[in-house]
Amino acid sequence: MTTEIKEKKENSNIVFIGEKPFMNYVTGVVMQFTTQNLAEVIVKARGKFISRAVDVVEVATKRFLDDTVEVVKEGIKIGSEDFTNKEGKQVRVSFIEISLRKKK
Amino acid sequence: MTTEIKEKKENSNIVFIGEKPFMNYVTGVVMQFTTQNLAEVIVKARGKFISRAVDVVEVATKRFLDDTVEVVKEGIKIGSEDFTNKEGKQVRVSFIEISLRKKK
Repeated sequence: MTTEIKEKKENSNIVFIGEKPFMNYVTGVVMQFTTQNLAEVIVKARGKFISRAVDVVEVATKRFLDDTVEVVKEGIKIGSEDFTNKEGKQVRVSFIEISLRKKK
Repeated sequence: MTTEIKEKKENSNIVFIGEKPFMNYVTGVVMQFTTQNLAEVIVKARGKFISRAVDVVEVATKRFLDDTVEVVKEGIKIGSEDFTNKEGKQVRVSFIEISLRKKK
């Protein structure tokens, strides 16, 4: 539990995409760049939420941030990792990480 | 119709991910590299099939092609495009393109 909280604090520029309402994530990404004034934000998702992560990035950058933020060159990474699901079963799941950065 | 067929022939190294059984796409990608002996294959998907495209790439490269094929550096592209859905309505949909290449 402690590690989890610590990790969250250290990785505060990471937005994990899950099953909350879509606009929560869009607002989250937008606010990291505006209110929090961060230069770089990483959008992460696993499994079925990968599609959603791409949607969030598209809407946040094109509709809300008006192309002042872009996907970093070589900034999209995919892979798979072992993951323990709700039933406690070990499964292999794909992930995506999309790095966004303020345009110079 | 003619244009569509022509495009298909010219873009034969592209695998479009849709709602067919998952393994069809995995086999499709694997065979492009083995039977067809292509050096590069592009996996494309739109909307909810984006997650599936990542799964297909992971399974094809890691489980079947045994890491002889890799994602090209800067080879993952995301974006959005206008798309006319089944109801004839114009909608904006996200897409992903993942380029795979035989390792040297």
